[in-house]
Amino acid sequence: MAEELSFPTGIGTSDADQIRLLGHDLAEDLMGKVGFGELAFWLVAGRRPSPGETRVFEAVLVALADHGFTPTAIAARLTYASAPEALQGALAAGLLGGGSRFLGVTEDCGRFLSGVLAQLDQVPATDADWDVVAEDAVRAQRAAGKFVPGLGHPVHKVRDPRTPVLIAIAAEEGLRGPHLQLFEAIGRAHPAVLGRTLPLNGAGVCGAALADLGLPVEMLRGFALLARAAGLLGHLAEERRTNLGLEIYKTVDRNAKYTS
Amino acid sequence: MAEELSFPTGIGTSDADQIRLLGHDLAEDLMGKVGFGELAFWLVAGRRPSPGETRVFEAVLVALADHGFTPTAIAARLTYASAPEALQGALAAGLLGGGSRFLGVTEDCGRFLSGVLAQLDQVPATDADWDVVAEDAVRAQRAAGKFVPGLGHPVHKVRDPRTPVLIAIAAEEGLRGPHLQLFEAIGRAHPAVLGRTLPLNGAGVCGAALADLGLPVEMLRGFALLARAAGLLGHLAEERRTNLGLEIYKTVDRNAKYTS
Amino acid sequence: MAEELSFPTGIGTSDADQIRLLGHDLAEDLMGKVGFGELAFWLVAGRRPSPGETRVFEAVLVALADHGFTPTAIAARLTYASAPEALQGALAAGLLGGGSRFLGVTEDCGRFLSGVLAQLDQVPATDADWDVVAEDAVRAQRAAGKFVPGLGHPVHKVRDPRTPVLIAIAAEEGLRGPHLQLFEAIGRAHPAVLGRTLPLNGAGVCGAALADLGLPVEMLRGFALLARAAGLLGHLAEERRTNLGLEIYKTVDRNAKYTS
Amino acid sequence: MAEELSFPTGIGTSDADQIRLLGHDLAEDLMGKVGFGELAFWLVAGRRPSPGETRVFEAVLVALADHGFTPTAIAARLTYASAPEALQGALAAGLLGGGSRFLGVTEDCGRFLSGVLAQLDQVPATDADWDVVAEDAVRAQRAAGKFVPGLGHPVHKVRDPRTPVLIAIAAEEGLRGPHLQLFEAIGRAHPAVLGRTLPLNGAGVCGAALADLGLPVEMLRGFALLARAAGLLGHLAEERRTNLGLEIYKTVDRNAKYTS
Repeated sequence: MAEELSFPTGIGTSDADQIRLLGHDLAEDLMGKVGFGELAFWLVAGRRPSPGETRVFEAVLVALADHGFTPTAIAARLTYASAPEALQGALAAGLLGGGSRFLGVTEDCGRFLSGVLAQLDQVPATDADWDVVAEDAVRAQRAAGKFVPGLGHPVHKVRDPRTPVLIAIAAEEGLRGPHLQLFEAIGRAHPAVLGRTLPLNGAGVCGAALADLGLPVEMLRGFALLARAAGLLGHLAEERRTNLGLEIYKTVDRNAKYTS
Repeated sequence: MAEELSFPTGIGTSDADQIRLLGHDLAEDLMGKVGFGELAFWLVAGRRPSPGETRVFEAVLVALADHGFTPTAIAARLTYASAPEALQGALAAGLLGGGSRFLGVTEDCGRFLSGVLAQLDQVPATDADWDVVAEDAVRAQRAAGKFVPGLGHPVHKVRDPRTPVLIAIAAEEGLRGPHLQLFEAIGRAHPAVLGRTLPLNGAGVCGAALADLGLPVEMLRGFALLARAAGLLGHLAEERRTNLGLEIYKTVDRNAKYTS
Repeated sequence: MAEELSFPTGIGTSDADQIRLLGHDLAEDLMGKVGFGELAFWLVAGRRPSPGETRVFEAVLVALADHGFTPTAIAARLTYASAPEALQGALAAGLLGGGSRFLGVTEDCGRFLSGVLAQLDQVPATDADWDVVAEDAVRAQRAAGKFVPGLGHPVHKVRDPRTPVLIAIAAEEGLRGPHLQLFEAIGRAHPAVLGRTLPLNGAGVCGAALADLGLPVEMLRGFALLARAAGLLGHLAEERRTNLGLEIYKTVDRNAKYTS
Repeated sequence: MAEELSFPTGIGTSDADQIRLLGHDLAEDLMGKVGFGELAFWLVAGRRPSPGETRVFEAVLVALADHGFTPTAIAARLTYASAPEALQGALAAGLLGGGSRFLGVTEDCGRFLSGVLAQLDQVPATDADWDVVAEDAVRAQRAAGKFVPGLGHPVHKVRDPRTPVLIAIAAEEGLRGPHLQLFEAIGRAHPAVLGRTLPLNGAGVCGAALADLGLPVEMLRGFALLARAAGLLGHLAEERRTNLGLEIYKTVDRNAKYTS
């Protein structure tokens, strides 16, 4: 049976003479004129970001690119050590760790803040008003037996150095919107509810900033993955020279202890 | 048995107060001050690129970010349709197609050019000299029964629009080095050897340009993957709205024909 | 600082003379004496299955191995078409679709049934007693706005042929336990609650049967993935001969329609 | 433009009443009647194996299922520790290490033996004749600066316990064919060429046995991956209980040493 097929897309198409991306001529209009971070924003949001938005967005990508020997970096190195001929496999293996426990906080935090804001009748006008909203939100989360995403960090127990810097950059660019303001209010309000003071972590502030850029909260994990792809390439380039993955494997193997 | 362990790395480390990346303070020195493309270059090359290098590098990433409905984009969309709760899996599935046939040309071309250059006693001084080198290289490849990487394209049969634009950008930035010059010479010299005229393709010129930036040729596929990660996120953001992956699956399934 | 490391495992170890797996000598005690399905059960459950358990378990794996042109099979073929030199990448890409919508039902159903059973004070003695439990469970699920996992199928709208066969096999082996009995009761009881009759699907009955084998419900998706790995290898072996992935890609690409 | 589509496959199809796999009724003819290993063979080879072939095939899968803390097992555990909600990602990450260095030997050895046999005018009749062929093959490989796949092992330096056992099983089933005989001859002949005695390793003998079963040598890596999928599920089931991946990550991280 003959059928009419049509697969619509607004991303890209090409014919013999031209490659079009996002409705523009890739070669004539984009190459050399659009930055890579700018393009990544555009691809997901469907609109070109302003220079200020691009600066905040790239600051987030830089903040999330690497955090040393994470499980994802080690998994990528081990996979490269096993199959160095397939770099794509090592990169993919590293990204597959981008789930709930390590890279997921950015999206979880953006979703959480977005959910709280969606229930407000009006945007709070003062820090004191924000604090009321924040305290209610923390209290509700606690009552539900859940953590507040973006609060606390295993290493940076007092203060995550990325948090104030990203808020300052967003403020400079006039992009410190309701998600960031709510996140900051949570930083002020949570001790009264939880009985202890936790830092606002870097992954969380990145989620708040991305949400303030109007990016869809369901895609925030994607930006964390894009950022981490760059960090993983750094680890893999180093792995080519140092074979650390092999060393890690041998360390584990020679200390294996059989237990029935 | 107690043992001393030491896992050296030049990528990143963190302690309670500070996150260091590439020897710099991530929050104070990098966020808001370094672009994402710039950071990706730095992570792999181990040195910060100049503004001109960054512009060429980002032009390459933009050139490689997307090419419409490639096998990788479709695989990512199908995977997302099956497992939308794990965006990292859909992205990884897309990147896993970044092998020899679709995304591999960038690295193959960079390696090929680099190999030819490594055998030269001195860098050719004129286009005519380059043409001699190029003709020999094409002839040797042909004699070995191999294709010249970067030559020919299934869609852009006459001219790939990305090629002249990237060469022009590199020239503007003073970065049209020996790899690009050899690649251009191959474009001039190959018809005499092969008996037909093929275009210099976009993936190939990207490999030549990256090699001229001094990036390790064994890592060039990595940059194609990083670029494609952004394109795949664009496809996945669109997939969330349009469910095209599901449509593609149904199209294939309803036209399945059993053959023993 | 020197430290004592110890990585305990009950899976496997090896030294110069011997490879041990699950506490046995791999070469002397297992090879040629244990079937592959039997070993897979043993690896996850930590105990060797009986011949009857093995038969039910392998029947499940056979039932889940393939379902034609699923999104996972197509994704694997597209990835192979792109990167044929890395078979592991094509297989991994296929498995990554094993999430909530396609392969997840087996685990979802096992978890659901297990959750209902955990709340019972005593195991129902008669079909009528089971029906009361089942009706309550369906009603609660409906009240929560959730589907009953294992109920309904897009293709097999009236009856999934795998369901009665697997129940019969389990009964023959004396392994038709509480999960299967509850699942069957749901098949009888749901029309009164939902107002329409849906089939008990094959993925669901597999989940019930695996749970009756005492396998941990959190690992049931893993068995679906193992089964599907065999099906995907079949698709990839065929792809080597037929290049269908390339054909699918071209079909999509030539019917792309740009929409801003 | 309307078009006729047809996607032929010999794997599986389904309609409202029936699921067909390999031309048979899945529910009526296969479930409970075909073992899982048997089905995996059938899916790839396109023919049902005999009981003897199934026994050798399953012995190979058992031999390759696990080898303790390999890089693939560790990568899977780390990925699970990061993203426990996506078991498919952890399994995929583990399989992605199935490349040239760890799991690839099975296929490399099968291909190598197959290539040598393809050049013979007639199959050698005696061990002495085989030894001549083997010695030539080892000599040619050495002259080309290449290793002989399947020869040597980092742990089992004298003798790999799997090798004689698999050869004995194949012999019992009348399936000790030319690939295994050539492999054994290499075991006898190589010391005279290489000047030292290396063991025939387990991955290699598995490749030889699979090739003697008539399975396509280009797919042998696939069987190693299938076998390893079972082993990885064992590791992941254990990881759920012991959180070893997290422990490994912390061990690496706390011993990180920054080097510029």
